[in-house]
Amino acid sequence: MIAILKPNVTDAQIKSLSAWFRAQGLSVHLSRGEYQTVMGLIGDTSKVDTELVEGLDTVQSVMRISEPYKSANRKFHPLDTVVSCGGAKIGGGNFALIAGPCSVESEAQIVGIAHSVKSAGAAILRGGAFHLRTSPYAFQGLQQEGLDLLVRAKEQTGLPIVTEIVSVEQLPLFDRVDLIQVSGRNMQNFDLLRELGKTDKPILLKRGPANTIDELLMSAEHIMAGGNERVVLCEQGIRTFETHTRTTLDLSAIPALHELTHLPVVVDPSRAALSAGLIAPMALAAVAAGADGVMIEVHNDPSYALCDGAQSITPDAFTALAKQIEAVRRAVVQ
Amino acid sequence: MIAILKPNVTDAQIKSLSAWFRAQGLSVHLSRGEYQTVMGLIGDTSKVDTELVEGLDTVQSVMRISEPYKSANRKFHPLDTVVSCGGAKIGGGNFALIAGPCSVESEAQIVGIAHSVKSAGAAILRGGAFHLRTSPYAFQGLQQEGLDLLVRAKEQTGLPIVTEIVSVEQLPLFDRVDLIQVSGRNMQNFDLLRELGKTDKPILLKRGPANTIDELLMSAEHIMAGGNERVVLCEQGIRTFETHTRTTLDLSAIPALHELTHLPVVVDPSRAALSAGLIAPMALAAVAAGADGVMIEVHNDPSYALCDGAQSITPDAFTALAKQIEAVRRAVVQ
Amino acid sequence: MIAILKPNVTDAQIKSLSAWFRAQGLSVHLSRGEYQTVMGLIGDTSKVDTELVEGLDTVQSVMRISEPYKSANRKFHPLDTVVSCGGAKIGGGNFALIAGPCSVESEAQIVGIAHSVKSAGAAILRGGAFHLRTSPYAFQGLQQEGLDLLVRAKEQTGLPIVTEIVSVEQLPLFDRVDLIQVSGRNMQNFDLLRELGKTDKPILLKRGPANTIDELLMSAEHIMAGGNERVVLCEQGIRTFETHTRTTLDLSAIPALHELTHLPVVVDPSRAALSAGLIAPMALAAVAAGADGVMIEVHNDPSYALCDGAQSITPDAFTALAKQIEAVRRAVVQ
Amino acid sequence: MIAILKPNVTDAQIKSLSAWFRAQGLSVHLSRGEYQTVMGLIGDTSKVDTELVEGLDTVQSVMRISEPYKSANRKFHPLDTVVSCGGAKIGGGNFALIAGPCSVESEAQIVGIAHSVKSAGAAILRGGAFHLRTSPYAFQGLQQEGLDLLVRAKEQTGLPIVTEIVSVEQLPLFDRVDLIQVSGRNMQNFDLLRELGKTDKPILLKRGPANTIDELLMSAEHIMAGGNERVVLCEQGIRTFETHTRTTLDLSAIPALHELTHLPVVVDPSRAALSAGLIAPMALAAVAAGADGVMIEVHNDPSYALCDGAQSITPDAFTALAKQIEAVRRAVVQ
Repeated sequence: MIAILKPNVTDAQIKSLSAWFRAQGLSVHLSRGEYQTVMGLIGDTSKVDTELVEGLDTVQSVMRISEPYKSANRKFHPLDTVVSCGGAKIGGGNFALIAGPCSVESEAQIVGIAHSVKSAGAAILRGGAFHLRTSPYAFQGLQQEGLDLLVRAKEQTGLPIVTEIVSVEQLPLFDRVDLIQVSGRNMQNFDLLRELGKTDKPILLKRGPANTIDELLMSAEHIMAGGNERVVLCEQGIRTFETHTRTTLDLSAIPALHELTHLPVVVDPSRAALSAGLIAPMALAAVAAGADGVMIEVHNDPSYALCDGAQSITPDAFTALAKQIEAVRRAVVQ
Repeated sequence: MIAILKPNVTDAQIKSLSAWFRAQGLSVHLSRGEYQTVMGLIGDTSKVDTELVEGLDTVQSVMRISEPYKSANRKFHPLDTVVSCGGAKIGGGNFALIAGPCSVESEAQIVGIAHSVKSAGAAILRGGAFHLRTSPYAFQGLQQEGLDLLVRAKEQTGLPIVTEIVSVEQLPLFDRVDLIQVSGRNMQNFDLLRELGKTDKPILLKRGPANTIDELLMSAEHIMAGGNERVVLCEQGIRTFETHTRTTLDLSAIPALHELTHLPVVVDPSRAALSAGLIAPMALAAVAAGADGVMIEVHNDPSYALCDGAQSITPDAFTALAKQIEAVRRAVVQ
Repeated sequence: MIAILKPNVTDAQIKSLSAWFRAQGLSVHLSRGEYQTVMGLIGDTSKVDTELVEGLDTVQSVMRISEPYKSANRKFHPLDTVVSCGGAKIGGGNFALIAGPCSVESEAQIVGIAHSVKSAGAAILRGGAFHLRTSPYAFQGLQQEGLDLLVRAKEQTGLPIVTEIVSVEQLPLFDRVDLIQVSGRNMQNFDLLRELGKTDKPILLKRGPANTIDELLMSAEHIMAGGNERVVLCEQGIRTFETHTRTTLDLSAIPALHELTHLPVVVDPSRAALSAGLIAPMALAAVAAGADGVMIEVHNDPSYALCDGAQSITPDAFTALAKQIEAVRRAVVQ
Repeated sequence: MIAILKPNVTDAQIKSLSAWFRAQGLSVHLSRGEYQTVMGLIGDTSKVDTELVEGLDTVQSVMRISEPYKSANRKFHPLDTVVSCGGAKIGGGNFALIAGPCSVESEAQIVGIAHSVKSAGAAILRGGAFHLRTSPYAFQGLQQEGLDLLVRAKEQTGLPIVTEIVSVEQLPLFDRVDLIQVSGRNMQNFDLLRELGKTDKPILLKRGPANTIDELLMSAEHIMAGGNERVVLCEQGIRTFETHTRTTLDLSAIPALHELTHLPVVVDPSRAALSAGLIAPMALAAVAAGADGVMIEVHNDPSYALCDGAQSITPDAFTALAKQIEAVRRAVVQ
């Protein structure tokens, strides 16, 4: 970490600042120029709060040389992490196609879709039981009944399942779930992340619509700091000024994350799209950009799905898309 | 609510769509033009999910005529709500100056600052005990001990206190707190909001850095739907591309919220500022724009505060600012 | 166009408003509900300024039913436009690989790169002669000499050339250019667009980093309104809060634009990337999402390019990328 | 300027890089740590392109210690600049109230409004003659006739005038204008800025809706580099995700700019507002935050103004606002 000091800083201030850094276990290397004094801080700077240091009235600006995350950092773990969940593998060359409805609605619906996406090549079944909704008056999901139905679909098809947890108290219910999803809104619910870090369950951590790549990695770090290193990252769109899409899918996050971390990266193009016509092109684009998996909302009757119908495609459209995805994978992997 | 249908929609589709809306308790008014068919939906549309309707493959776009929030809506409650907390009043012409350190550090610190801000005119004491931090390695606050010290400062000065809750389980501890703060990161932690809605405690609901004004109102609605109507809204900055500030303080949210809702609106300029020099001008601007209160971070030694030192000002600077705030209030209220 | 009137609007106001709309050549269809009055406006609404209407004190909100652009609108021109420039074709199933250095530096450099990208499969040669730079002290390009060198590379390789125009006065110099590029910063330089609309030259119109898809189409409309319909749109990244990339490449703009317009859409992933490692994955993703072309910065010595070295790849890397691009195209077109 | 080198950089690469920096007139100070090598670059770094250096494959990241703008930099010009235009003064304690219609419509209109705003305390008259419009079909202003009418209002009231220039060729027409406005869309039309830099006219440079504070200062630098130091900066809102306003007025830009530059800063709250109710609160907030002037759109019949009616207030409302502005100024200046 490097701190540029303010031009008018006195010797006494420099001495006091150096002492403060040393008290935090860092060694200090001072370089005084004609116009500027620069302080190099060496040691474990991951615990240092950059904004705090930037706020000191003797400091002009601060630059991290090493990233504040360790467990998630590729520098210390050069090999790709492979996350196994209920037979499926994600990362390190293993690609996972994840598909299913936004919301579990009935046994016939979820079991039917499960069979259909499995035969099209899906490796994991998705389906929402608990929903976080902006409006207190909107449909909140079938709750525990939805979870039971999802487990039934797993038993009948053998597909591992992924579904979202919305509060810490639900954790015991999620024993039967193969991959626990944390939605973007909960990406910085550190309380929840901490508890998930104590389990040995694979976690699908979605990027919040207004969170940076660094913040996503810091949230992964919250889980991993507890001992659970089975984290799958998920890009699903960030909030921008554009209105033709709900959010802007940031596909450059895929190669950027692959440079920064060893964790697998999947993409969920459904939430960002406002029209079903965008789902297939964006799923293919995600695969071409190197994603370790994609999540697709599939519904047998998208027009009247209880939730997010616009973002779903039919089982037939999914079957066609799965073939194209496989073809694009072969083209880019070679 | 008005739905514009797609140009090529068939009679059968219109019939089926009308039936679907009627099943949701709405009456449907159809207007077929040469080029376009428009459906007017009348009734309680607050439960209708706009995005879902927009996703139907027969619908081109949707426009709400009435807002999806009811309890927070000024249309149904024209008079300003006044929230009383421990003697202080916020809203309806009552202005509250809220001050104190980012983090409670010791009894001497918090009691000292409490006396000092009280004599400068503060109506409520702020101080953090539990902190949500991006890094799992950063200082998380003194936790329950911090809360105890804050209560001691309240006993010794008579100032009501505001502090942040970070998880549902802490709720019993907050009995002694006069105004419970929900941070921006938890603005859509609906689980927490629902529990707060069951209490009779005043809630300070901060806008998330990437949340719209409408989403802030919907989160207030989550609390109010449970019966607790004592909600104070707080603007503290939104995420933009600008880097000279941590976030961009959206002061236009003050008059916009005053048009939309009867709830009081306070502003916390500290988090957005990256340098202490911005705090006073932005606090004064908030007052000029009609805020019902401002929150200021005050610290006796801002250079070495354990948290967010950059955003604090000294007790002396606060005393001067409090006088200017009073002068601006007189100028705009007349 | 539909206007929702304010709840308390009087009969006299409605009458006056109707007259005002009729004076603009529109017919007015009024629908008065118990709670709300809605005005449907029929006719050529593309000339109506939505914001102006929204500002009238009798109007609550306004919704366009038809888009404000006509020449660029796919509704009125269902077939894809194919833009031919110097032998190369873009759009309607024709894919164009555009490559070359950010800046023309010398004859040896530009001719060498031209030969190399041609043999790798490029259809058009890019190269900057005039540069718009944020700093008045930065390198502004070789200017006219650069243009001459670019033309020489065209003569020696037969590749059509694309280069950027930065002001109206340069137009005569661009006679020898096959595809005239308008940078994102000039996307709303309507003066320049108007002059380009009077020529018969193909125009490569880049989306500004803070412009919406609708604004891009309106700028295309500025050119097309003058009679020049040979416009190629280009996505190159929009400004967001993320800092791991310079801008966020909005690949969902590709399928969104293909729905809205018949004009071809190409993608330039170079400017958005901050590291060369992102260029290839994003170029492949653009192709998978259906782009009609991609532009790649290629330089024989990217480390010391006079401009934007970080965003360039070597001729060898380009040759490998061109093969992958071809493979992805085959995978998605089928 | 400090460059952090990549971890695996070789001695040969360091030597080559050092030579490259020295060739640009900088002296190089190398500091090799156990984990990291840091290069300090001393000399006139304002000509160095940060992004280019960051792109070199031996460099991990770069941090500027000194700003890339010189003429606009407060460090080298500690005293506030006062810009005089036609008798009015802006900056250095001089506050200018600027008022008038968005668009000049007729002699009666502009002269009438001019008299009225003058008697309310306005120091400068605004009025648009040439308009940049997103749509090629929208009203483009009365053009030269509008300018003539504006000059007539100046002659009859003695008020200096400000109006927008939209292309270089118009420059001769602007001889009679006291303060030449460059709109946000033209903030990076460097061609235009360069020509304005050759005149001795005061320039009102508006911040583009997606431009950073640093970019605004770099654009001022483009003008000042030509010798014209009479630049007034103007904040008018930046593009964010919020939709209750057209753009988000960034009032923190006022104190931030006052720290960074000696140039005066005025605020135009009209464009950002979508409803007239936001104009007065935001104008007062701008004054409280330390603005050197505010620009207000005033129209005698805002409901039917040819342009931007929603953002205008009546002469009576302006008179009341002018009094409040004066009161707030007294409160904050003391």
